[in-house]
Amino acid sequence: MRLSKFVGERTKDAPSDAMMKNHILLLRAGYMKQVANGIYSLTALGQKACLNIENIIREEMNACEGQEVKFPVVMPKELWDMSGRYSSIGSEMVRFTDRTNRPMLLGMTHEEAAVHLAKNWVNSYTQLPCMIYQIQTKFRDEPRSRGGLIRVREFTMKDAYSFHVTQEDLEDYYDVMFKAYERIYKRIGLKNVVSVKSDNGMFGGTASHEFMYLNPMGEDELVICPHCDYRANQEVAQCKYKNLPQEDMLPLEEVFTGEAKDIAEVSKFLKMPPEKCMKAVVFAIKGEQGSVVCFIRGDREINETKLRKLCKKEVVPYDATSDPDFCAGNIGPLNLKAKDAKIFFDQSLKGLTNLSTGANKKEYHFVNFNIERDYGTVEYYDISKVKAGDPCPNCGGELHVSNGIEIGNIFQLGTKYTSSMGMFVKTKDEREINPIMGCYGIGVGRNLACVIEENSDEKGICMPLSIAPYKVHIVPLRLDDEKVASISSKLYHDLQSKKIEVLIDDRDVMPGVKFNDADLIGMPLRVLISPRSLSNNQIEIKLRKTGEVIMVDAQDGLNKILDIIQNNKEI
Amino acid sequence: MRLSKFVGERTKDAPSDAMMKNHILLLRAGYMKQVANGIYSLTALGQKACLNIENIIREEMNACEGQEVKFPVVMPKELWDMSGRYSSIGSEMVRFTDRTNRPMLLGMTHEEAAVHLAKNWVNSYTQLPCMIYQIQTKFRDEPRSRGGLIRVREFTMKDAYSFHVTQEDLEDYYDVMFKAYERIYKRIGLKNVVSVKSDNGMFGGTASHEFMYLNPMGEDELVICPHCDYRANQEVAQCKYKNLPQEDMLPLEEVFTGEAKDIAEVSKFLKMPPEKCMKAVVFAIKGEQGSVVCFIRGDREINETKLRKLCKKEVVPYDATSDPDFCAGNIGPLNLKAKDAKIFFDQSLKGLTNLSTGANKKEYHFVNFNIERDYGTVEYYDISKVKAGDPCPNCGGELHVSNGIEIGNIFQLGTKYTSSMGMFVKTKDEREINPIMGCYGIGVGRNLACVIEENSDEKGICMPLSIAPYKVHIVPLRLDDEKVASISSKLYHDLQSKKIEVLIDDRDVMPGVKFNDADLIGMPLRVLISPRSLSNNQIEIKLRKTGEVIMVDAQDGLNKILDIIQNNKEI
Repeated sequence: MRLSKFVGERTKDAPSDAMMKNHILLLRAGYMKQVANGIYSLTALGQKACLNIENIIREEMNACEGQEVKFPVVMPKELWDMSGRYSSIGSEMVRFTDRTNRPMLLGMTHEEAAVHLAKNWVNSYTQLPCMIYQIQTKFRDEPRSRGGLIRVREFTMKDAYSFHVTQEDLEDYYDVMFKAYERIYKRIGLKNVVSVKSDNGMFGGTASHEFMYLNPMGEDELVICPHCDYRANQEVAQCKYKNLPQEDMLPLEEVFTGEAKDIAEVSKFLKMPPEKCMKAVVFAIKGEQGSVVCFIRGDREINETKLRKLCKKEVVPYDATSDPDFCAGNIGPLNLKAKDAKIFFDQSLKGLTNLSTGANKKEYHFVNFNIERDYGTVEYYDISKVKAGDPCPNCGGELHVSNGIEIGNIFQLGTKYTSSMGMFVKTKDEREINPIMGCYGIGVGRNLACVIEENSDEKGICMPLSIAPYKVHIVPLRLDDEKVASISSKLYHDLQSKKIEVLIDDRDVMPGVKFNDADLIGMPLRVLISPRSLSNNQIEIKLRKTGEVIMVDAQDGLNKILDIIQNNKEI
Repeated sequence: MRLSKFVGERTKDAPSDAMMKNHILLLRAGYMKQVANGIYSLTALGQKACLNIENIIREEMNACEGQEVKFPVVMPKELWDMSGRYSSIGSEMVRFTDRTNRPMLLGMTHEEAAVHLAKNWVNSYTQLPCMIYQIQTKFRDEPRSRGGLIRVREFTMKDAYSFHVTQEDLEDYYDVMFKAYERIYKRIGLKNVVSVKSDNGMFGGTASHEFMYLNPMGEDELVICPHCDYRANQEVAQCKYKNLPQEDMLPLEEVFTGEAKDIAEVSKFLKMPPEKCMKAVVFAIKGEQGSVVCFIRGDREINETKLRKLCKKEVVPYDATSDPDFCAGNIGPLNLKAKDAKIFFDQSLKGLTNLSTGANKKEYHFVNFNIERDYGTVEYYDISKVKAGDPCPNCGGELHVSNGIEIGNIFQLGTKYTSSMGMFVKTKDEREINPIMGCYGIGVGRNLACVIEENSDEKGICMPLSIAPYKVHIVPLRLDDEKVASISSKLYHDLQSKKIEVLIDDRDVMPGVKFNDADLIGMPLRVLISPRSLSNNQIEIKLRKTGEVIMVDAQDGLNKILDIIQNNKEI
């Protein structure tokens, strides 16, 4: 491509709401333009990088005997009624009626479509295992799009679906896909990736893993044991506690605590560490009456995902300040006014003695509260988030908590979709069973965003060779110099005829502008062709990532470039 | 791919509503499955064929210096309000509101998005001409989907947009794209393609061409001169008439014609040829009061596209039977009751003498009607369809009328979008102008459908090598024979390592089933490996299209196949 014709601009600044590196650089380097909230157009730079990522994914899926198919973006309601997800998924799914008033939807995921395709056609164990996948546009009406291509409403995704006779067969294939995902991240240039156990969410099923790109701006919290291989999303990470020393139980006392309401204030007022305070957190249940009150050790936070699973309800945080059923800031289990509230105790409280807790009375707390003695026998549940330093549930070592961006996920789905949609296969011994499914997703744009988070410097993007939209960026200085012009043009066309994607800066602008733009858009090889170097019959090849400069005779330029591209996959 | 794992079935019969060859064969051979009216899932066979077509289109667009970009499928109303098309396009465009109640739409075409991307970024003549294109899913809520992949609601399309300083520059580039389209059709295996002048429809602009695949089931009528290069869509084809002999004017007479109403009946009753009868056709104007009455020679039909352009209104056929303003079956210009009707005379009537026409009175017509003498001076317009045998407007030779399927279109758009959306570029002499645009579309699935219309026989599909999802189909007979199994498996893996897409029929079924399936799905090379041929150390290569059989020594199979693929592009 001739840069003079490129539809896309390089700018010094990015919009002030762009906080993440990928967002700033994708806009500044002209890889994309915003069309609406969470909706972007990609320029040739952005789209070619995405196509390169897609091709790497495609190769790895084909290597797993995946069959590339295409499901529709627009699907009829009936298809999603079969799994029950038409009604169970909320407003993130776009629904509309077509010209004949039939309700339709935009696919956010394609389990139903995959079963629809395979059903009746795949009906014998001899056809299994099999896997179908697509690479396609999806729309998810996210309430909060953010972070450039990290969280958008419209995106391109590879989603794959496998079918199996037995759970063992699924698990074997799941491992195959796991390894394919690891190869994909490596090939596109992402190193800081970990896999963690995760929540199955709206997909249902038995087990799942997320691949996480470690990044402090990531929305997910990851619990990682540096001592063993325990890794989990905070949503599902298991809590263990070091035993706190037991004390002799002291008599329960109601004490004045005045304006002290949250744990920090109460702890300070009572001169007790937060670990000795019992915290109350109130939740409402979406679409239902009544509330859920959780008690947890003062230094810990409720894990809403765990709570939801425990209640089997969609619970949401509830502000009890003006609710007469609660004495907000002074809530405790004893004398709680809200008679119909469901009460849960977190296991962090188990065995603790002489706690402080709200007295359900304005300006008063109890101290020396002992749950069993003062309230009764209760069950303890794991509804807490893991904190850094907690013991690993596997080896007991101290856990780390890091932030991450989900860049892929793999699910063991069980028979949720095949049974609800009536897909059957005949086993070797002639039984009719619902095949067991796996599903495997990876977002193209979000992976590009993470590649840029990892591969950039203060000057701009450092595109990995494997996904660079153009491998070579020719920068001729003084195109009015006949020799510069002819050697630049020959190299440009020679590279094209070798099927190497190449960019040439044919603009009539100052050298500094050309250099800055080349650094900003970040193609892996920059070739400088100037009257000065040509006076020694040389051209300069510079590697964007390392800054290494290689001078070669002009006539050897093509071969040297081909050699670098062939033999240095990681430049 | 191993056929045993293929998600897709071969069947003897197709649904009874499948009338066209591509529809029947795509379903019978398991290339696709219907999800809803006009919405299909593509299997690996269908999708890989489409991807191959996409890659050919991509190569040809890149050869025209096209920049591959990606516009959103979902766009905000505001973007389409700028061009006025949000309101001017009807219910074929899907509209919905997002979770924040903002009106959104599904893109059927992307002129607005193209201008949005280029605007502000492309602002100098030095950046022009430039072209951006995408290959993407579109949704058009067609009232009547039909013909397999010929007319569907969801489809993949390449759409390209070019920007120019002058009309001359656009015309030069338009020619470049014209030739690229011709190369695309040739490469994907379509021969019966003609280009015709066409109507610009909802796109606006100055000139346009459609590429038409000639097929009797096509919905478009094409006017083609076999004597010169005149070719036009019926919608815009110009009418010329041979002069009819003039007669002396006879006195106007009102005659009883009884129940005779349509031209055939009146002509028969009056014993006058239809060429001497004047026909009236009534139209309503969408969303407005009043009607349009057209008079035309009795043997001809009104061309609604021409009429719409003439009226600059959305006219639709009107049944005047029970409208008291009209005496349906007896309508004529003289004494017409509908006083507010707009009246148009087609030029087929010019110079005709002694016509019959309705008397606007039940059971009566006029004969010996002479327009100028009996009604007054009128203007004549070209609002007629061309009939086979009409003189060519270019050379006067006799025209043919054929049916065709539109498989691509190219438009000269003018400044409709750049001016309405406020895109400006600076010319060399520092003037600010709206750049002139071209746009260029080609549907992937519809082209696949036409390839199958053209490349099939009574046994099934004959996939052209260039777009075949798999180039080679290995058919081992008796996989329990160790030699058959090992040679088949080696060839399968050797071809894969040479990056040749290959299918192997590893099923335990009768030879006849394997042969029939291979013929039906139609990969260009079938390789038969059987104990019988291996007893002579040979394998059989059969070309699907010609039936030619080539026997080679087993160890030479790979090289022979590679040789055929390299050197026989048109097998």
